[in-house]
Amino acid sequence: MILSLNTPLDMHLHLREGTMMQNVAPISAACFAGAVIMPNLISPVDTLQKLFNYREDIEKVCKNEIFEPYMTLFFKPYPREFLEEVREHIIGIKLYPAGITTQSESGVTDFNMIEPTLAIMEELQIPLLVHGESDGFVLDREREFLVVYRRIVENFPVLHVIMEHITTADSVSFVDEHDTVSATVTLHHLMITLDDVIGGLMQPHLFCKPIAKKPRDLQALRDAVFMGHPRIMFGSDSAPHPQHKKECVGCAAGVFTAPVAMPLLAQIFEEADRLDCLQGFVSDVACKRYAITPPAKTIELENKPYRVPTLFNNVRPFFAGETLRWSIRSPARI
Amino acid sequence: MILSLNTPLDMHLHLREGTMMQNVAPISAACFAGAVIMPNLISPVDTLQKLFNYREDIEKVCKNEIFEPYMTLFFKPYPREFLEEVREHIIGIKLYPAGITTQSESGVTDFNMIEPTLAIMEELQIPLLVHGESDGFVLDREREFLVVYRRIVENFPVLHVIMEHITTADSVSFVDEHDTVSATVTLHHLMITLDDVIGGLMQPHLFCKPIAKKPRDLQALRDAVFMGHPRIMFGSDSAPHPQHKKECVGCAAGVFTAPVAMPLLAQIFEEADRLDCLQGFVSDVACKRYAITPPAKTIELENKPYRVPTLFNNVRPFFAGETLRWSIRSPARI
Repeated sequence: MILSLNTPLDMHLHLREGTMMQNVAPISAACFAGAVIMPNLISPVDTLQKLFNYREDIEKVCKNEIFEPYMTLFFKPYPREFLEEVREHIIGIKLYPAGITTQSESGVTDFNMIEPTLAIMEELQIPLLVHGESDGFVLDREREFLVVYRRIVENFPVLHVIMEHITTADSVSFVDEHDTVSATVTLHHLMITLDDVIGGLMQPHLFCKPIAKKPRDLQALRDAVFMGHPRIMFGSDSAPHPQHKKECVGCAAGVFTAPVAMPLLAQIFEEADRLDCLQGFVSDVACKRYAITPPAKTIELENKPYRVPTLFNNVRPFFAGETLRWSIRSPARI
Repeated sequence: MILSLNTPLDMHLHLREGTMMQNVAPISAACFAGAVIMPNLISPVDTLQKLFNYREDIEKVCKNEIFEPYMTLFFKPYPREFLEEVREHIIGIKLYPAGITTQSESGVTDFNMIEPTLAIMEELQIPLLVHGESDGFVLDREREFLVVYRRIVENFPVLHVIMEHITTADSVSFVDEHDTVSATVTLHHLMITLDDVIGGLMQPHLFCKPIAKKPRDLQALRDAVFMGHPRIMFGSDSAPHPQHKKECVGCAAGVFTAPVAMPLLAQIFEEADRLDCLQGFVSDVACKRYAITPPAKTIELENKPYRVPTLFNNVRPFFAGETLRWSIRSPARI
């Protein structure tokens, strides 16, 4: 059986820099027509020059593929002139609460300070992408952050807000209730709960922010995705770290799913008997919500076993060493 | 300032076997007058011969210290004759639900099968020590197991039941409500929550079963211990694993607290302004509840900085590399 997907998109992707980027970017570029590139580099992407440089680096590494890097800016209080200038070069601006995840130290500390910038973004129709977690108890962070989302949605009724990598039933309900709100869901949050991370042996390679939640949260995410939710789209949050930063005293947050994303998505949609919703989840919803037209590119999957390597250089992928039911047949260029 | 503690006891200790035992047992033997030795070896302690052999091994390794190993048997359905014979050689029998923690595979799968043995234990006054977790969602396991405790307490009203390493406010309430029930509390569960394990970077050396819980659970444990609860006693659950089993793909459960237990207990009781309750927590409650008389031994602590080694051979301790306010002045033999 062959499964053809038009212009699959990864709407939340970490490509890192330097040798790590050289290692991981071609993998995503081969399987996707485009991806939303996260800006939380060691020195965050917060100027036009950094944005151009980063985009150029990505294009250089991915030059053999049809692949559109949709660039994002790291949220800070920006002046109008800058936002007007940057607008055409970005798909949106990514907001991180300070210190909440990898390289987010220069994120937002005071949410009262964000509103002037949001007002300009709303006017200029620049989407706001959000890592929505409070600094509270680890399992409550996403729920606690809903008050911030609520205030943003109420004060900026036309702003397109994207709740990134949602993991809870509460978040699904929030998306349901607000037409201007979209959300991304990762592959791993459609497959694991906290039990998989710390319920048996502890699994550092399944450790991510936000942390995987309860069975009922997993179910709510799956229900929403498999019903073909009109505002929920795929964003892998594929976040590579070298092995020595995962299997160590203090393990970095992030699951490297890029190499297995498409085969495993096919597998779980097939298991749910909802392969008909996959095209929407991996492309159509995003194209509509962001009003983008990715470069023409079709990915063909076939139900032929794929044995996942245990390492891509020094990065261990999701399902390392396991055999998947679907494999990528061809990134056929049109 | 000098703090003298009479016959401190660790009422829940993993000494392992072989070279690991040689590495860790002398540390506990130096700081404590005795300890309850867990029976979950690779081949569990479930015969008199294994019990004698294990005890002999421990005594050989600890021969330079005054130290009483209070032996336990691994719970299985045992016949009366065996229990009568083993009775004088053990402090109690430790029940593990099958597969719930390190080397518990041969534990109990069907709780309907345990009652005949419990009836004999009750009659022979053999205490029942329990790892009380269900196989449910990782944060609910201890709460879900309360129904098993409740049935045991109701059906065996004279049996001394010890809820090992309790971690939740619910468990504290259960102890409060039942006079025949005691509990052990670890050092680390008096100091950390799930936030410390997975809230920032993931910390494999703080990963244990039961997993550390929520702030309100931590508070309930601290409240109970610092008020001098008459049925709650110290059990470190110090559970060493070699570094390569902690910093790896699947990290083993257990925190190695033996080297820092007494200094850190002094520190947290001092911080809570309840140093007056420490003697009860680390010895008197256990002596009374178990009706034991440990060998005479006094441990002196002084408020002099102690820099914790980062490794004891290949095992990383709790608070590795950090400096504690209290140190052990002398295991003075009387």
